Amino acid sequence: MMLCCRLKLQHIRPTLLVSRIYQPTSLRDVGQESRQGEMTCKSQRLMQQAGLIHPSNPGCYYYLPATVRSMEKLVRVIDQEMHGIGGQKLDMPSLCSADLWKTSERWDLMGKELLRLKDRHGVDYCLGPTHEEAVTTLVAHQAHLSYKQLPLLLYQITRKFRDEPKPRFGLLRGREFYMKDMYSFDVSEEAAYQTYESVCQAYTRLFARLGLRCVQVQADTGNIGGKLSHEFQLPADIGEDRLLVCGDCSFSANVETMSSDRTDCPQCKTGTLVESRGIEVGHTFYLGKKYSQVFNATFSNAQNKPSVAEMGCYGLGVTRILAAAIEVMSTEEGIRWPGLLAPYQVCVLPPKKGSKMDEVAVLADNLVHTLGEALPGLRGEVVLDDRTQMTIGKRLKDASRLGYPYVIVVGQGALEETPRFEVICQQTGETMFLGQDGLLDLLGRVETV
Amino acid sequence: MMLCCRLKLQHIRPTLLVSRIYQPTSLRDVGQESRQGEMTCKSQRLMQQAGLIHPSNPGCYYYLPATVRSMEKLVRVIDQEMHGIGGQKLDMPSLCSADLWKTSERWDLMGKELLRLKDRHGVDYCLGPTHEEAVTTLVAHQAHLSYKQLPLLLYQITRKFRDEPKPRFGLLRGREFYMKDMYSFDVSEEAAYQTYESVCQAYTRLFARLGLRCVQVQADTGNIGGKLSHEFQLPADIGEDRLLVCGDCSFSANVETMSSDRTDCPQCKTGTLVESRGIEVGHTFYLGKKYSQVFNATFSNAQNKPSVAEMGCYGLGVTRILAAAIEVMSTEEGIRWPGLLAPYQVCVLPPKKGSKMDEVAVLADNLVHTLGEALPGLRGEVVLDDRTQMTIGKRLKDASRLGYPYVIVVGQGALEETPRFEVICQQTGETMFLGQDGLLDLLGRVETV
Repeated sequence: MMLCCRLKLQHIRPTLLVSRIYQPTSLRDVGQESRQGEMTCKSQRLMQQAGLIHPSNPGCYYYLPATVRSMEKLVRVIDQEMHGIGGQKLDMPSLCSADLWKTSERWDLMGKELLRLKDRHGVDYCLGPTHEEAVTTLVAHQAHLSYKQLPLLLYQITRKFRDEPKPRFGLLRGREFYMKDMYSFDVSEEAAYQTYESVCQAYTRLFARLGLRCVQVQADTGNIGGKLSHEFQLPADIGEDRLLVCGDCSFSANVETMSSDRTDCPQCKTGTLVESRGIEVGHTFYLGKKYSQVFNATFSNAQNKPSVAEMGCYGLGVTRILAAAIEVMSTEEGIRWPGLLAPYQVCVLPPKKGSKMDEVAVLADNLVHTLGEALPGLRGEVVLDDRTQMTIGKRLKDASRLGYPYVIVVGQGALEETPRFEVICQQTGETMFLGQDGLLDLLGRVETV
Repeated sequence: MMLCCRLKLQHIRPTLLVSRIYQPTSLRDVGQESRQGEMTCKSQRLMQQAGLIHPSNPGCYYYLPATVRSMEKLVRVIDQEMHGIGGQKLDMPSLCSADLWKTSERWDLMGKELLRLKDRHGVDYCLGPTHEEAVTTLVAHQAHLSYKQLPLLLYQITRKFRDEPKPRFGLLRGREFYMKDMYSFDVSEEAAYQTYESVCQAYTRLFARLGLRCVQVQADTGNIGGKLSHEFQLPADIGEDRLLVCGDCSFSANVETMSSDRTDCPQCKTGTLVESRGIEVGHTFYLGKKYSQVFNATFSNAQNKPSVAEMGCYGLGVTRILAAAIEVMSTEEGIRWPGLLAPYQVCVLPPKKGSKMDEVAVLADNLVHTLGEALPGLRGEVVLDDRTQMTIGKRLKDASRLGYPYVIVVGQGALEETPRFEVICQQTGETMFLGQDGLLDLLGRVETV
């Protein structure tokens, strides 16, 4: 009966075997010569060593399968939070016509950061680093947009392009990367500020769900333009942004926004500003009518008169969040993930082959199927490290490097009358010995997305 | 108690209101002058009218929210089928270095179809229309790839670029589009043919699940190269491919592969070949060592000697499948979707406001929540057409145009002692009158992904 049940499950979902997962840890780092000047950091080193990414052209990476799994989870969390505040997901072309960008004057303003090309007819395009022009044009084309349909929050999660002068730090500063960019359209300045605030709250919730400490700081509006801007920063020594944080109140700002030698807090007047470094993972802008005026994005107001919409735009660096999380959470030797984003939640380790423990190996195999059967939330999340030609110790080291939140060693204890398993919670470093019920209880509480 | 329950649900998942869904059906079609030569077809017309897509640059479209929902569903089906045959998903850069493409000689071969650009240092790149070079280089970099790890099936679902001379037919022939491209690496020619066959079977299963009649035809290998190739074609008058299909046996081929005046079947010798037209939605190639030799993608064989891998590559046009399905399934007036891919499964229609039916409107609202509560598979799939300033008739016409598989009219019958609802199954054209139990039974059988 038990066997029959297992066979059926195997047919539906084959066991995920570590030996078959494409996570190449022995990639030759070719093209090294062209990247000698490139700096490196912990997340880049760990991600390359773990077979999560592989460098392609400068600032461009292959995202290997475990990274794609993690990124898809992050995208689901972002989708949930954006839907929660009424965001609707669309997808805009990467090829942006020069005409649009000349209308906003950013064609010249962006300089060399913009990757430009001509099509077969000689028409100029750029590869979109951000899509204010495109989305505003879209909304402007709607003949009958009523005030009742606002606020309108449109977002996409797509690949963006920026010809960085110095691509570096792996996924932290690339030339090709995934970004979530949202654009809001509101009836008035007041309503736009409310929308702005609700997006900031959604960002704060998002980082809290990922277990990341994030600081919201006043920021410069740069070439996007607009009147008000905040950055969401993860404090980290490797961070490229310099922040001034008040010791007494909630004030914090990017150095760019202040005279750099200022040490007194402009908000509480009493506190002292201390400098720290951060990785920018999100950015919000209140744009006002900067783009909507130029592209004539209007709606019919309550008096049925055309009125120019108030806009905001809001970015999240998707691939950057992944790398930044690894940067701030990992040890020097091994990756530690935000629990929700780990590519796989559980790794089961059977004993070394030929160590008179073949009986135990069968129990490990059974355990993988039992977990999949008893805990639907963990389906597809449990891998079996079947490389039983290697010692448990060596595979444990690998597991620590890859950062599965839970590692279960199936050893001698599994043969006892009341079988026991060694469980290592890699996030906390804790080791426990649990029976099957305890194990199911522990893993049943694992949150997945 | 009922109310309390409803309020809680509303907090978790707000009702999807048609009035708030960004599906703009009144977009001004600007830039018409530049697209006058562009041909149109049913799917393009219906998708633009329904607010599913909006033209941007020639051959580039905004995918509006309902299209993104549909595409995400299609991606999930593709993921399931690719995982089912051991496929692993990665993500490769869009920017492909000219050096790689010169190595394969495709830099010159592709001519004007390749979109080319230079970065700030004057280095040449192209925007990848397909990734044989990139993936073969990746696999070649793996120092220790054992024959035990093969077959290796790597795929991605990403945006591709092709500078079509005549972009047309909406999403059927664009310059920017989503494609699933898979690449296989095998130990021998025999093993590679097995992999080829298993991918073809997965494609056949995929189209069957979508309810699409698909013909697998012999095809030309074009500029991809290799020895064997098949196309997956949806028969349609608008199709750009000409097929020769035998009336007596299973033989079918693209005209390109045969002398065009041939009318006798080369397989059964007795049948007559009849010409028909098709839309190419998938393409498989057995590549042999064409790329693996050039880029030196080797593995260690059973004798621990390096051996060049046998390759295949396999494409599915993701956005094209969406449009092609709409092309072949729709009526002239309204979109019909493959059930699995409909953006929303159910639309609930309350009566017109002020028609003395406000009591019924509350019942419609309740119904939406009951469905979400009783049928977890339909969460997020039920919309309420709250535009109650419009007559039922007008909204029914909209619903028919958008193609929700199930439309539920909540009218007078809902007030009867045993409430009844009018249910229109748009796929079959059938209308039924059902009580709540019958409704739950019907909708409980709807397959979602």
